[in-house]
Amino acid sequence: MSKVTTGATMSLDGFIAGPNHDGFDYLFKWYNRGDVETPTGNPKMTFRTSAASAEHLRKLTERLGALVVGRTLYNITNGWGGRHPLDTPTVVLTHERPADRPEDDENFVFVSTGIEDAVAKAKELAGGKEVGLNGGTIARQALDAGLLDEVHVDLVPVLLGSGIPFFGQIAGAPVEFEGPISLVEGDGVTHIAYRVVR
Amino acid sequence: MSKVTTGATMSLDGFIAGPNHDGFDYLFKWYNRGDVETPTGNPKMTFRTSAASAEHLRKLTERLGALVVGRTLYNITNGWGGRHPLDTPTVVLTHERPADRPEDDENFVFVSTGIEDAVAKAKELAGGKEVGLNGGTIARQALDAGLLDEVHVDLVPVLLGSGIPFFGQIAGAPVEFEGPISLVEGDGVTHIAYRVVR
Repeated sequence: MSKVTTGATMSLDGFIAGPNHDGFDYLFKWYNRGDVETPTGNPKMTFRTSAASAEHLRKLTERLGALVVGRTLYNITNGWGGRHPLDTPTVVLTHERPADRPEDDENFVFVSTGIEDAVAKAKELAGGKEVGLNGGTIARQALDAGLLDEVHVDLVPVLLGSGIPFFGQIAGAPVEFEGPISLVEGDGVTHIAYRVVR
Repeated sequence: MSKVTTGATMSLDGFIAGPNHDGFDYLFKWYNRGDVETPTGNPKMTFRTSAASAEHLRKLTERLGALVVGRTLYNITNGWGGRHPLDTPTVVLTHERPADRPEDDENFVFVSTGIEDAVAKAKELAGGKEVGLNGGTIARQALDAGLLDEVHVDLVPVLLGSGIPFFGQIAGAPVEFEGPISLVEGDGVTHIAYRVVR
C-alpha cells in the first residue's frame, strides 16, 4: 500500500510561501547553492545542491510514485510547462477541470470530488510507490482526514514574518508527530521527516 | 566580548507558546523523555533527556554567563522560585521593578530602559561568557536592534496551530540566517543553531 507523505520547503517561522505567494527567492535558494546536479522532469530545470541534498532528492524521486497538488499551485506554475519537475504523474485537486485540459493524461489527472478521492487516485497511479502531497491546504485536508503518514520538511533559515503556513488551521491542534525519523544536513537547509501518529 | 544568542523550544509551526501561554506540555516534553539527568539551578527541577540532549544542555549551561528575559515570563514562572533553572544571573526587562524586589541581587537584575541597556547589563554580568535571550518579544527587539549573533532552536514536532511566534513581527522581514552552524538530533527534539547575518 502506498505511503502518503507531504513535503515542502518551509521557513524557520513556518511558512511555505510569503504573504503574496512570494518569498521563493529565499525559500528555494537551497535548490541552487551547490555543485551537485540533479536533473528534473523539466529539461530546462536542473537542481544544483550540496551532495547531501542531492542524495536526499535522489531518494525522494525514487520513492515517489505520484503527487497530489492544489489548483492554485498548478496555476501559478502554469502546469510546470507540461510535466511536474519531479517527473511524476500528478493529481490536481480542483473545483473545475482547466479548459485546455479536456482529458487526463500521463502527466496530469484532475479530481474535483475531494481529498480522499484525489489521494485514492494518486495511489492507483503510484503503483505501490509513495504518494507525495503539497504543503498548505492539501496537506491540512489530508492531515484532518487521517490520510497522512509522514511529514517531510526542508527547513530554511529565513524569517518571512507572514505568509502561507505549511498546515494552516488544522482541525485538531495540537497535533504531535513522532521523530525525527530522518535528519539530513544540507547547505542552508535541513531535511527533517516526521511520522504522523494515527 | 560576549556573544548574544537567543534560544527557545519551538513547535514545527513556529510557536514558542500556545495562544493562551499554554502548549508547554507538548513543547517541553523533550526535557523529560530520556534517562540522562541534568540538574538545574532549582533543586526541585531535574531534566531527564536523551544523552544527545543532555550533552547539548551541558554545553549550553557552560557557555551561558547571563540571561535576558521579559517580565511576562518572569511573572508566569513566579521568578522561577528565586533563581533561573539555568543557574545564571538573569536580567529582567520590565517597565517597572516588582514591589517585592526593591534591590537587584546575584539572581535577578531589573532594567527598564530598553533592550540595549538590558543586553549591556547582561554582558557586564556574563564575564565574557554568552548572553542568552528569551524568544518572543525580547528576541524580536534584539534582532531588530542588531544585537543578536545566533539563534538556537529546539524544534519539536507538534503543531500548535496558533500562539506566540519565536520572533513575531520583525521590522525587516524577510531576514536570512546562516547555517545550521550546529545540528543535534535528540529524542522528539532537534537542536538547530543559526548565525545572524549583520
